[in-house]
Amino acid sequence: MYSVEELQKIIEAEIISRSKQLLEQNPVELYEPISYSLEMGGKRLRPVLLLLAYNLFSEDVIPAVPAALAIEVFHNFTLLHDDIMDKADVRRNRQTVHVKFSENSAILSGDAMAFQSYKYLVECKSKRLVEALELFTKTAIEVCEGQQFDMDFENRMDVTVDEYLEMIRLKTAVLLACSLKAGAVLANASAEVANQLYEFGINLGLSFQLQDDLLDTFGDQKTFGKKIGGDILANKKTFLLINALENASEAQNTELLNWIEKSVFHPDEKIEAVTGIYKQLGIKQLAEEKVDFYFKKAVACLEAVQLEDVIKQPLRELANKMLIRRH
Amino acid sequence: MYSVEELQKIIEAEIISRSKQLLEQNPVELYEPISYSLEMGGKRLRPVLLLLAYNLFSEDVIPAVPAALAIEVFHNFTLLHDDIMDKADVRRNRQTVHVKFSENSAILSGDAMAFQSYKYLVECKSKRLVEALELFTKTAIEVCEGQQFDMDFENRMDVTVDEYLEMIRLKTAVLLACSLKAGAVLANASAEVANQLYEFGINLGLSFQLQDDLLDTFGDQKTFGKKIGGDILANKKTFLLINALENASEAQNTELLNWIEKSVFHPDEKIEAVTGIYKQLGIKQLAEEKVDFYFKKAVACLEAVQLEDVIKQPLRELANKMLIRRH
Repeated sequence: MYSVEELQKIIEAEIISRSKQLLEQNPVELYEPISYSLEMGGKRLRPVLLLLAYNLFSEDVIPAVPAALAIEVFHNFTLLHDDIMDKADVRRNRQTVHVKFSENSAILSGDAMAFQSYKYLVECKSKRLVEALELFTKTAIEVCEGQQFDMDFENRMDVTVDEYLEMIRLKTAVLLACSLKAGAVLANASAEVANQLYEFGINLGLSFQLQDDLLDTFGDQKTFGKKIGGDILANKKTFLLINALENASEAQNTELLNWIEKSVFHPDEKIEAVTGIYKQLGIKQLAEEKVDFYFKKAVACLEAVQLEDVIKQPLRELANKMLIRRH
Repeated sequence: MYSVEELQKIIEAEIISRSKQLLEQNPVELYEPISYSLEMGGKRLRPVLLLLAYNLFSEDVIPAVPAALAIEVFHNFTLLHDDIMDKADVRRNRQTVHVKFSENSAILSGDAMAFQSYKYLVECKSKRLVEALELFTKTAIEVCEGQQFDMDFENRMDVTVDEYLEMIRLKTAVLLACSLKAGAVLANASAEVANQLYEFGINLGLSFQLQDDLLDTFGDQKTFGKKIGGDILANKKTFLLINALENASEAQNTELLNWIEKSVFHPDEKIEAVTGIYKQLGIKQLAEEKVDFYFKKAVACLEAVQLEDVIKQPLRELANKMLIRRH
């Protein structure tokens, strides 16, 4: 059985070696942004989940490494294109691809990454490869749907909590769930267990994204990584804002809408004012309860999987680490 | 045996029906541009080639229709993204997707189309599906490489004929070749025949693209569709310009470079002047010879395929139709 740290090392080494191979190919203008994107780091959460799931059913995880890589390359492809669409200049403290290279580079190298992820996935010699490909393709389309909903929400003030949860399910949760299920499918697990792991991933993903919403406003600047209050400044329709708009008194609603419509303001002042309204409305506690709700559902899905407790321990640990209470 | 026209009708009907299905899905903002792109028309050359190849080995082409659709959806995905990168506003007399909708729409709906093409391909129940998926994926990456080379050539004045031929092989020819080979593979043809059809497609594609270069300058406005002289105005490194630069006298070279560097000019004057130099240098004949060279190679590949002549007739006819002498 592998630990999370061991799997992270395996993936990191594989990424470095594959990235080098890509850099040897022509045209270098296509492959350099891919290599830059892959070597940006990150927690490699999705490929680790895939290998952990595979490891539930197979001692040796090495045959599944190309599939793990495929998921990570796909995830990085979405970052390249999302960063163009969201006009994001910085990611993980480095320039995004469309800033460092060009927008055309980010489009085309992103496309090549999408196909490269299939190339890696097809390398897996599993008799259930086609099933994994179907799952991966369905998931990729859902992630596009999620990003479209997210963009559409920018222009709407009437987004409901249910719509929001569906958006983050598509944009974030299904890829975590796909990673887990793909690992199980490639290891030839039963449909029942594969689906339990998928549900575990969905609930973990929802919990994880809701926590991200919370941390963006109520997190600790030192450990969060991004600047606190970014969502508030961008008027992002997060779980916090949607609930605030739904529960606000008339006066609070007016104040919220004023801050949303203002084009000239001092950033810290806006963050403080909106956070103040959230506090008055108990939004922090509401979000924390929702994080816990989905986290408990996730844990229940994992517990339902008919395998020895000790075998499921690394997955349980990773889930706990992802949802550590930093707020 | 199906005729080209029968296959075109089958594909057109399938596209309309699938496009309607997509429009019923949410978010509509994601699926509307896809439907718009698919219903733009075009000759449906690639899916017809796939079905013609399939039909060489199987009476009934219906099982291969999803794969044919996959190739067409992929092709249209490349148009969406290429049109952003090339800043093209019009295609087939209609606004391009990034103009009619938005650049973000063209990026994201394009991405969804890329994955949708896999979704359709995986619908095919063939025991050699994984082989077809590998071929399709390899081809998709090559098409990205071709587009990157094409963009890189914009900033270079020293592109060689060999580099140019490699670029159009990747950008145009491999997808025609992949369509043919995929049809053969899905119909469980031998590796030998599948590869002969692939080579037929490569040479047909090279011939076809070189003819397109020729027609862009020397074609008949009425039948060509696009405006004559577009490549000249855009300083595109076509087979014509590259050969002209290689064969020009010092005076002709200076004149060509002057026209290329000029930022203010009367379009018709530039077209006339550059076309004049092409004529002095016999570039038209050179290109015609190259079109014939690859067309004859293509025909030879098809003839080498060990099948009855009558069975190969529709493919031969389509190739002839594609390379009709309109110049």
